[in-house]
Amino acid sequence: MEARSLFIRACQGEATPRPPLWMMRQAGRYLPEYRAIRAGVTFLDLCKNPTLAAEVTLQPIRRFGFDAAILFSDLLVPLEAMGLPVAFTEQGPSIAEPVRTPADLERMSAFDPAKATAFVLDTIRLVRAALGEVPLIGFAGAPFTVATYAIEGKTSKRFLETKKFFYREPAAARRLLALLGEATAAYLLAQVAAGAQAIQIFDSWVGVVSPEDWDEFVFEPTAALVAAVRKSGVPVIYFPNGATTLLERVAGVGADVYGIDWRLPLDQARERLHRGGAKNFAVQGNLDPAVLLGPAERIVAQTADVLRRGGRQGHVFNLGHGINPETPLESVEALVRAVREG
Amino acid sequence: MEARSLFIRACQGEATPRPPLWMMRQAGRYLPEYRAIRAGVTFLDLCKNPTLAAEVTLQPIRRFGFDAAILFSDLLVPLEAMGLPVAFTEQGPSIAEPVRTPADLERMSAFDPAKATAFVLDTIRLVRAALGEVPLIGFAGAPFTVATYAIEGKTSKRFLETKKFFYREPAAARRLLALLGEATAAYLLAQVAAGAQAIQIFDSWVGVVSPEDWDEFVFEPTAALVAAVRKSGVPVIYFPNGATTLLERVAGVGADVYGIDWRLPLDQARERLHRGGAKNFAVQGNLDPAVLLGPAERIVAQTADVLRRGGRQGHVFNLGHGINPETPLESVEALVRAVREG
Repeated sequence: MEARSLFIRACQGEATPRPPLWMMRQAGRYLPEYRAIRAGVTFLDLCKNPTLAAEVTLQPIRRFGFDAAILFSDLLVPLEAMGLPVAFTEQGPSIAEPVRTPADLERMSAFDPAKATAFVLDTIRLVRAALGEVPLIGFAGAPFTVATYAIEGKTSKRFLETKKFFYREPAAARRLLALLGEATAAYLLAQVAAGAQAIQIFDSWVGVVSPEDWDEFVFEPTAALVAAVRKSGVPVIYFPNGATTLLERVAGVGADVYGIDWRLPLDQARERLHRGGAKNFAVQGNLDPAVLLGPAERIVAQTADVLRRGGRQGHVFNLGHGINPETPLESVEALVRAVREG
Repeated sequence: MEARSLFIRACQGEATPRPPLWMMRQAGRYLPEYRAIRAGVTFLDLCKNPTLAAEVTLQPIRRFGFDAAILFSDLLVPLEAMGLPVAFTEQGPSIAEPVRTPADLERMSAFDPAKATAFVLDTIRLVRAALGEVPLIGFAGAPFTVATYAIEGKTSKRFLETKKFFYREPAAARRLLALLGEATAAYLLAQVAAGAQAIQIFDSWVGVVSPEDWDEFVFEPTAALVAAVRKSGVPVIYFPNGATTLLERVAGVGADVYGIDWRLPLDQARERLHRGGAKNFAVQGNLDPAVLLGPAERIVAQTADVLRRGGRQGHVFNLGHGINPETPLESVEALVRAVREG
């Protein structure tokens, strides 16, 4: 009999003695051992070096004993593999020739993950060999979020180029999202084949879409991606950051787990997802990462509230967003204790 | 008998033959006549010059015949009057010495609007004299939103200084919000006395707070501000930008009108506000301003949808956020026609 981990059981909607715990961006700048490695290498080189990427993936597991590891990589790796080279500057990612016309889609194509993203698959293999019982989460960006980078060419505030492209070239926009979804499915299935035991799909910017745009552009390629990855048998977590307002609609994508930011308590999130038709799903979240900048008493109190509202069935404890680089280690320690002692 | 305008009647929850129409940032950079004035004067000088500020307030009324004018001014005017000088740079507003400790509150105090913000009241008087039947909306920032500028010293992305201050110095944070609320109430009542016939309170950044922080810090000073201004008899519009998730809680602030961004259809917004206990309220919104960058057919179709969902009782048509400077005039013309012809 397979001894499934706390994390996988919770992802599959089962009851667990306590919720498993991991943190978005747990392999990141709040860790001194991460900063030490990062001091000698650019962000992109770190992503592309399996030994180093595996090392930083493992760091938070060693220090805090989290219940899952998440691959260290970047959302834009597939975009580069599809033909849009990405540079990383102080201001964030930058794409010199973004997609602005239907013709620009000709520059993009599906890719063979084993060739174009071998460094990611190698990282996964290295991490799995070192992890033992702790499950490893692979990830990618959702079609909408990756499309915003393809179209804007950078992190945006108002996403006007994206929306303009959607409204002026709706057929090309749908083609772009479908293409991104299909390439991402192949990429994520390759991650699973290499050893990822769960997949998180980050829809970091989907909070800017209206319900109409969700229905017209975003829903279909997102649901198709989730379905394609679920066929592999691993649980799929969909994280619609900032889009708690859309939860009834989001429920249709058919994920195993829905990531919830800090704007809606988990019990209400469950209710809305249920109202939207989701069945047998788990929830993940949703402590405001900024709480970790406050005193321990507040961390403990708000963690207790998340634990209470999230319950002990189908609940993965996480932050509502990535941990901030400014977070003191003692805060993470207080959080870990609070979840373990629950 | 007073002939109350379409706008005021809709704000008071009454049925109107069609919803009145105005647009957030309607006096702004999408207008060539605005850009012509702005070419010769800095933003701050424009705010502080009643003749010019009145002129740009009137421009969109002349061109499009909107059903309400909104004072041209800036959210940070009261903050400067309270003792925190604000500079405007290309990157936005900047406060050299923001509030970071409880002691910093000593540098702030209530102010006499007739003295410290005479230019705003003069602008209102000039606009009113020129407007005729068209009602004038005065405005200010909500306590939370203004507090973020006081604490961050600029427009923020993650609002970590604000949240850190809240969590580490909760008593001082509540004092700051109360102080801002009281000063803003006096400021808005002075706007009403000078001739403003409705007031909009912009909570531009409240979308970043968790339900817990809303309850602990934001709700009370916001509700107190709304109540203080409502005593003057003019309708108060509260616009919790990005916070549709919190609508049931927002319902408690007791506004006459709730501004709704583009993330939630107006019929669902009404339902949630109702569920939160709001009674006899109107709604305002909620077309995604990015739609105005698309073709006319989409503008007409989505406007029709907002009209249908918003209904003809207690509905003020608006965008879900300020109009983008990139918006073509023909798009605004198409919108105006669509709302007028219903």
